[in-house]
Formats: sequence, structure tokens, C-alpha cells
Amino acid sequence: MLLPNQSVNHHGHLVVGGCDTVELAREYGTPLYVLDEQVIREKCREYLDAFGRRLPQAAVAYASKALMTKAICRIMDQEGMSMDVASEGELYTALQAGFPAERIKLHGNFKKTELLRTALEQNVGRIVADSLPELQQISEIAVALGVEADVLIRVTPGVKADTHERIRTGQEDTKFGVSLASSAAMEATRLALELPHVNLHGFHCHIGSQLLYTDGFGLAAHIVMDFIASVRAETGYVAEQFDIGGGLGIRYCTDDVPPSVDRLAEEIAIALAESAQQHEIPMPQLIVEPGRSIVGEAGVTLYTIGVVKEIPDLRTYVSVDGGMSDNPRPLLYDAEYEVLVANRADAHPSHIVRISGAHCETDTLVAEVAVADPQPGDILAVQSTGAYSYSMASNYNRFTRPAMVMVNDGHAELIVRRETLEDLVRCDMVPTRLA
Amino acid sequence: MLLPNQSVNHHGHLVVGGCDTVELAREYGTPLYVLDEQVIREKCREYLDAFGRRLPQAAVAYASKALMTKAICRIMDQEGMSMDVASEGELYTALQAGFPAERIKLHGNFKKTELLRTALEQNVGRIVADSLPELQQISEIAVALGVEADVLIRVTPGVKADTHERIRTGQEDTKFGVSLASSAAMEATRLALELPHVNLHGFHCHIGSQLLYTDGFGLAAHIVMDFIASVRAETGYVAEQFDIGGGLGIRYCTDDVPPSVDRLAEEIAIALAESAQQHEIPMPQLIVEPGRSIVGEAGVTLYTIGVVKEIPDLRTYVSVDGGMSDNPRPLLYDAEYEVLVANRADAHPSHIVRISGAHCETDTLVAEVAVADPQPGDILAVQSTGAYSYSMASNYNRFTRPAMVMVNDGHAELIVRRETLEDLVRCDMVPTRLA
Repeated sequence: MLLPNQSVNHHGHLVVGGCDTVELAREYGTPLYVLDEQVIREKCREYLDAFGRRLPQAAVAYASKALMTKAICRIMDQEGMSMDVASEGELYTALQAGFPAERIKLHGNFKKTELLRTALEQNVGRIVADSLPELQQISEIAVALGVEADVLIRVTPGVKADTHERIRTGQEDTKFGVSLASSAAMEATRLALELPHVNLHGFHCHIGSQLLYTDGFGLAAHIVMDFIASVRAETGYVAEQFDIGGGLGIRYCTDDVPPSVDRLAEEIAIALAESAQQHEIPMPQLIVEPGRSIVGEAGVTLYTIGVVKEIPDLRTYVSVDGGMSDNPRPLLYDAEYEVLVANRADAHPSHIVRISGAHCETDTLVAEVAVADPQPGDILAVQSTGAYSYSMASNYNRFTRPAMVMVNDGHAELIVRRETLEDLVRCDMVPTRLA
Repeated sequence: MLLPNQSVNHHGHLVVGGCDTVELAREYGTPLYVLDEQVIREKCREYLDAFGRRLPQAAVAYASKALMTKAICRIMDQEGMSMDVASEGELYTALQAGFPAERIKLHGNFKKTELLRTALEQNVGRIVADSLPELQQISEIAVALGVEADVLIRVTPGVKADTHERIRTGQEDTKFGVSLASSAAMEATRLALELPHVNLHGFHCHIGSQLLYTDGFGLAAHIVMDFIASVRAETGYVAEQFDIGGGLGIRYCTDDVPPSVDRLAEEIAIALAESAQQHEIPMPQLIVEPGRSIVGEAGVTLYTIGVVKEIPDLRTYVSVDGGMSDNPRPLLYDAEYEVLVANRADAHPSHIVRISGAHCETDTLVAEVAVADPQPGDILAVQSTGAYSYSMASNYNRFTRPAMVMVNDGHAELIVRRETLEDLVRCDMVPTRLA
């Protein structure tokens, strides 16, 4: 399976963003994250165009948890994207990279006081309030600082999205948001309208992640628009913004057929228009929050193959020089991936094998996959690893985290340097009595 | 549930190693890993005594993947433990901490050339060879360096241990080792005996992790001793060492009743003696490799409780200021934990709640647990987190990794400093054209 902007050159090597991946592995070492700048920029433009055409005021906020580095922030800024952050570290990275605070939105089910204070001091564009006590707290801090807090309220629409349980968030039974089904969402709205130094701008929902159907978005749009209508009826308040969250799936495996961004925009635009007409309320400004679908298919991880072990009548194990520390998704979500032998990318995938990481436990990277007769020293490319690989990476077994190169038009640049052995011990402290 | 060396003081606060955990949280912030030095040292002594008494030459090697810092290495050295490492980073940390190379054993299903070279240059005590090609490679490097390689061969005994699939490693279908059932183990043995600059010292096996029964160890001991006897019959080689691995379980929840170290030693010693007598072979020197059972119950993680959200007729969500980035085990292995409100540790656990982390996804830390009426600002202690929490920690959502304090007799010392926001971006690079 080749991803957008990938090809195979006359050496039979996998080429990403015009760069020979075998050369990249040689120059930068493995494991190596490779990120295609053009694919990322095109995805941003696809979102901005598809939503902008149908909903002229629409904003597209990159969900930075998918992949957060300073270079990524620069690209998002240049493309005119907004940005979601969900921690002090994500906010810090965005601001350090010079991303405009007014286009930043702060999320989170538990934002500590210091984080809320920093966000208000830095004038971030929106804070997405997750509960009634948090609204109170936002107001108190804003009053103390003498600033205005611009908030959205996160509501749970009661939509049970068709995805892995661990990344399903729109159902009633969730830590996030205030429930539409109970009176909590209306209470939060009334509170936000009353609280000093709080400007309510509208509502937010998010139904889940890696969604391969769009109908959940249409359903959520209708449900939240019904709520917006109820709010107007009960309080007179007319929401000016509706943030429908993110969650569009990507292509991890040949069988995955994610809907196009255009299809997503169409589904949402139709639902919004229908609902606005039905309730005779003005169309709110739509915000959408893609993360995985911006960077996921732009990423490939390169590994070196080590031992190939055939266990008679059972299976063949192919070990690579990374694993659960650079990509925990197979273990966290039973995630599946397509792979290629990067130095024989045109060869027939003749062998069914298991790809195992090098960590001191089972560490299955791909449980069963077809690959061209893998040999020690081959470079293995795991496709679609742009999202939630580096961002979730650990130092388990004291593995150093890989470097990341951004490729574009045949040029490669480091955007994350490889960790060193010294990095691993930089936080270690030895009390003098033990030294 | 209180763990060894824990108590509740007259303020009703949880006390670990003589330190008030509420004070620790105040002084060092949360999330905070707290590690009880005395419990760790006592566990080391328990192992050394239980095995040393029954098997006078026995060695106990700490499996550093469970928790690896320089301070831990110092303690292991002082206690006379040996140490297992499974990566360049673990080896580096041990050597940096001044741990004697001759007591280090190197593991791994795929050890890169540089790692094998470093291990041989540094004269580590043992390399556990995992495959035939690796034996070849070890020999080649040893010849080139003009040193002797002291190896064990890892064999798969075909024992299917009763634990989570992802940490079960003794069965035939595994990436690790050479199979006893096929001819691979005998072939590897013959090869090791022939290869220049390779000194074979014996065999290694490991059946799994978090084992709550000892019978698997007895079974594995018999199977490997049968193999040692076959090897003598076929080649004349008499194994001098038998490393039976680790894997003894600990108490995560009230219902977990792990066998004592004494029981484990007894099971293994009896099996070895029986088998040695039956085959008329000399008793090999036994090596055992505990990790989790040395540090697991010595660790507590302290969090601050944020929002407490009751969803009518469903459940109550209690959010804490950490989660999957500081402890991914609940998501990786469906791990369960006991918790206490550290500032009301003597209160009745009256409320059944779900503990959720602060990350921007479901991030369940404890799915359902009884706890004393939790309130925002309370300190929550999650028990038995000494193993595989810090070692598997990530920066997901750009959370900084917590500090770790070691407590002993009422004194606390930092052994891992908290990461800073600057740490998060230290590897980020921005190409000048994007800056």
C-alpha cells in the first residue's frame, strides 16, 4: 500500500516526499519518523477549502495531541489553521513556536489552576469549559486577573461512535463535558451567562476518534443544534459558535476507506443548515478539530530488521530496532498497520510474518502482515504513523526516542533530533549517601 | 489496602517510609512517584536469603526494565544484586551509576551490533544469546575485539504461563529464544560450543510476568534440566548455570495473593534437586531475575484530585492530574489498582467511582474502585506503582513526567527530578525557513 505522495524509484526503494527512504535511514539512522510536509499542508488546505466553501466563517483547529513539535506549529500557523491544546506543555510549545495565542483553544477535563491562569494571561482564543466547577474557577481567575475569559462549553451529545472504546467520547458515560440528556448542560449555560468576566461563545462536542463513517457527525450536529435552540428558547442566548470536534479516520490498512474531508464537510453543512432552518436560528460559526487526519498519512516510521526467526508450523517473527516505545498504538488500541520493505518496495509481499519490537516483552508491532521476504539489515517502513506515535512515545527499556525528519520535494530536514544516552539520565539524581 | 511499611498517622494521612504523603505532595507537587527504599532493600535481601539458603551459589539479578534510575542501580549494587539490562540505555545507566559490569547481564531479542560491541568492550558478565545468527555475530565481534564472550542461551520451555497474553513469554509461539521442542536449542548449543571466543555458561528461560502461582517455575525447571541432561548426553557439555528468569507477581489489589519469595525458592530448589538426581547431573548455579517483585509494592503515585463529576444513574468520574502518560499499565494490560485518599486514609471507602486521568482521551486509570468520598484538592494515592509506571512513562499531550522521591525512615530525597516545560522542547528543531 502506497500513501499519497509516495512512490518507488528505479532502485526499488520507497520514496516519500521525493526522498529515498533507504538513504534517509542511512543518513539519520533508525528508528526514524519521516513526515511529508506537502501531505500535511495539502490536508490543511483540503479542510480549509471543504469547510470554508460551504460554511464561510468556518475555522479549522489542528488537534495538536496527534503530533506536537515546534515545526508543526509553524506549518499550522502558515496554513492559517487554529490550534487545540490540552495541557501546559502543548500550550507552551505552541507559544514558544510563535503560534498566535488568539487562534489557540484550550481543552481538558481537568485543567489545573496554573494552566487556566496561564491561558488567561496569554489571552488564548478560547477555553473549552468542561464542568460547572471549572466555569466558576475560570470566572474567579479572570476576575482576579482583570481579563475576559472567552469560553465554549463542552457538551456530551450521547452519540456512541463506532470506534475503539478507549477513543470513544461522545456517549453519556464519559469524563468529558456536561450532559445534554440531564439538565447539566443547560445549568452550565445559565451559569456561564451569569458569571462575571466570562463570555460564552457557544458549544463544543466531540464524538470519538478514527471514525470511518460521517453519520455520527450529522447526528451530533442535529443534537447540539437542538440544544442551541432550547438555550435560545429558555435564556434568549444565541450561540455564535459550534465546535463539532474532530475524529475523522485515516487509512491505516488497505481495507480502511475513510470518508473524504469533502464528504465530512457536506454531512455537517447539510445537518447545520437543516437544523438552523427547522429551529429558525442563525447558523453558528462552525469549528472542526482534525488531528490524526492532518498528519496521520503523512508519517512513515523506518526500522532496521534484525533477527528473522521462523518457528516451524507456527509463524515467522521479524524483529525490528524499535517497537512499543516509539509506537504504543498496537498495544493500546490493537491498531493495525501496513508495512513495506523500503529497499525492495516493488517486490511481491510473499511472506506472512509477525513484526516484533526489540523491547524486553512480547511487544508486537504488527501481529500478522504480508511482506516481501524480509532479511536482516532490510529497512522496514510502517505506514500511516504520523499521528499518535511520536506524541505517545516513551523511553521504555531506556530506549532513546527516534529522530523525526520532515521531507519535501526531495529535501529532508530534522524537526526532532534523536535523544541521546545522556538525555536518558538527565533527570536522574543520586543522593550523595548512595553515590 | 495498606502496603508493607505504610501506616496512617494521627492526621489520618497515609504514611510511606515514615513520610507523610500529604506533605510530600505539598513539597514536591503532583503527580509524584514515591518509592520506599526500605521495602526495596528488604525485597532484595528476601530473594538473596531465600535462594542463597537453598542453593548456595544462587545469584539474584534485578530486571531493570521494571524501574531504572541511577539511584536504583546504587541500591542494587549495595545489596549485592546482579542486574539485567535489555538495551543500550539500560546498560549506559547502570555503568554511569558505577554498577560493576561483571554483574550485568544483557538481554534482548534484537541487540544491534553497537550494543553487542559495547557489552563486549565493557566486559559485561553475561550476554544472553537469543538466536543462532546472534551467536554468530557475538563470536565475530568478540574475535574482532580479541575478547571472550560469556554467554547463556535463551530457550523457550513451552510453558504457557497463567498471565496476560502480552507478558507471557515461555510458550513456543514467541519472538524470544530458541525452541526446546524443535531442534533449534540443541543446534544453538552445538554452535555456541564450536564458535571461537564464545564461552557457553548455560541456559536461560523466562515464562512470563506478574505470575501468581509458582508451579510454572517448577515445570520450567524440570524442562530445562531435561534439556541440560540431553545436552550432556549428546555433546558432553555440562551446563554450569541455569537462569530461570523472573516474573513473580505482586499485590496490586486486595484479592491478589502472590506467593512468597520463600515459596518460589522452595519450588525451584526442589525441582532442581529432583531433576539433578534423576538425570545424575550436577546442580547448576541458579540465577533468578526479579523486577516487579523487587520494586512494585515499594511504589505509590500521588495525584491531586480535580473535578468530581457525578453522571446521574451512570457513575462518578474523579479526575486526577496525571494518567496514561505516567502510568500506561491500565490501558496496556487492563491493570487494576487500589487507591486511597491520602489525606483521609482512615476514612471508609464509601464511594464507588472511576478514576480518570487528565489526558485528552478516555484515559481510565482505575475503572471502578471504592474510595472515601473524594473531593477536589484531595490527594489520591495509587498503590503498587513502583514497577512499569515511570519506566513506561511518556510525554503524551506534552505532559511533563513526574518527579520521584525515595523515602526512608522519615526522610525524602529526589531521585528523579520533575521534567520542565523546557525539557519538552529540547529535541524540537525548527528549520530556518519555517522560523
